[in-house]
Amino acid sequence: MKDYQTLYQHGTLAQLVPGLFQGTQSVADLLTHGDTGIGTLTGLDGELIILNHEVYQFAATGEIRTVEANEQVPFANVHFLADQSAGNLAQLNFDMFKRAVIQKMNTTNLFYSVRVVGKFKSIHTRAVLPQEKPYPTLTETAAKQREYQKEDVSGTLIGYFSPDLYAGAVSPGFHLHFLSDDHSIGGHVLDLELNEGELFLQQFSNFNLHLPTDDQEFLKQTFKSDEIIDSIMRAEN
Amino acid sequence: MKDYQTLYQHGTLAQLVPGLFQGTQSVADLLTHGDTGIGTLTGLDGELIILNHEVYQFAATGEIRTVEANEQVPFANVHFLADQSAGNLAQLNFDMFKRAVIQKMNTTNLFYSVRVVGKFKSIHTRAVLPQEKPYPTLTETAAKQREYQKEDVSGTLIGYFSPDLYAGAVSPGFHLHFLSDDHSIGGHVLDLELNEGELFLQQFSNFNLHLPTDDQEFLKQTFKSDEIIDSIMRAEN
Repeated sequence: MKDYQTLYQHGTLAQLVPGLFQGTQSVADLLTHGDTGIGTLTGLDGELIILNHEVYQFAATGEIRTVEANEQVPFANVHFLADQSAGNLAQLNFDMFKRAVIQKMNTTNLFYSVRVVGKFKSIHTRAVLPQEKPYPTLTETAAKQREYQKEDVSGTLIGYFSPDLYAGAVSPGFHLHFLSDDHSIGGHVLDLELNEGELFLQQFSNFNLHLPTDDQEFLKQTFKSDEIIDSIMRAEN
Repeated sequence: MKDYQTLYQHGTLAQLVPGLFQGTQSVADLLTHGDTGIGTLTGLDGELIILNHEVYQFAATGEIRTVEANEQVPFANVHFLADQSAGNLAQLNFDMFKRAVIQKMNTTNLFYSVRVVGKFKSIHTRAVLPQEKPYPTLTETAAKQREYQKEDVSGTLIGYFSPDLYAGAVSPGFHLHFLSDDHSIGGHVLDLELNEGELFLQQFSNFNLHLPTDDQEFLKQTFKSDEIIDSIMRAEN
């Protein structure tokens, strides 16, 4: 039975900071926990957008492809889609957009999925280049990310709002990916201007953090909370 | 089907800091997620010890009673017991005990349940007095806690180890409660000396944070992560 109350996460965002980029869950396994979401592949290879049970990769080359069931994710968030319309939004820059979404939520103390189907005046994204072992840190990797910009594009924004309290496990606030309808652009959203779109929200009562219990590097890593959160804020925004 | 891989938590520890002590889940509901654990009741009334599907309250008066199914918890952790012996421990003070347990765990990056059945040279616990609305803060409440000490007592230590990274959602490190075999003492463990006992550990791949989505005070509260973690460290240790 599908659980619509749970936001499922494989991995903790903290593990990406020191460079634990090895995939630890198959896409097939991941999809048993949800049909919609975001994530990345082994080596931090591109940005994943999961819609209608299909997993798309926006690679740093700018290419979009369908990801196979046996590929591995070090980090991903998924949920079973049961979101509800929270109305239409129009003529908003990214800050205005974030404020508008927060106004539509009941609280900033719960996890939400955020989905917008709309027309964007502009969208600015990034995708990370695939890294090889020994993996560099998240900060080093993000410094070499590829950025993409497109004007007047229709597409879907998908991602999450997470309360600040859980920074470290998650990227606090909004974490949004994008996929255009024509698959010409995707990625982790750095900035946007929305012409018009419909906002869909899904509030979760459960946040299920699933950790890679068999990954020796993860088990051995020392995490310093303050440094971790600082690095996440710089790399993910 | 019982899920032995999940540590379930109702509420976030952060909510206790500003004084959100209203129970938001019934004991009956809680027990559908586990048969073993720790927690507290509405008003922060005493310390709960959950063993063999029975919920015991050690009240600040020193009395121990069985809690009813319709009583409410603002915060609790439970799991379905499937722990395994990690060997015997002997002649340890609290610091030595913590170090010994960490040595038996594979990592400090996963959540574990920690259970010790043993004989204690001494045990030092606290229990919180029931608070009335408008609730004071956790720091104010903890300042008025009742402390108990007993020498040469047999009993069960039950609780959890949580990685530092999740401070705020949880009390980082060890969070242990105690119940003596003769029900003469219980509570939140502040200090101990172990004569001899058997340690049982259960490693979890999932941490399921279940939040009180219908509690208006929780939804409206502003949480400042740094202050929250500071208050938790002072009140819970």
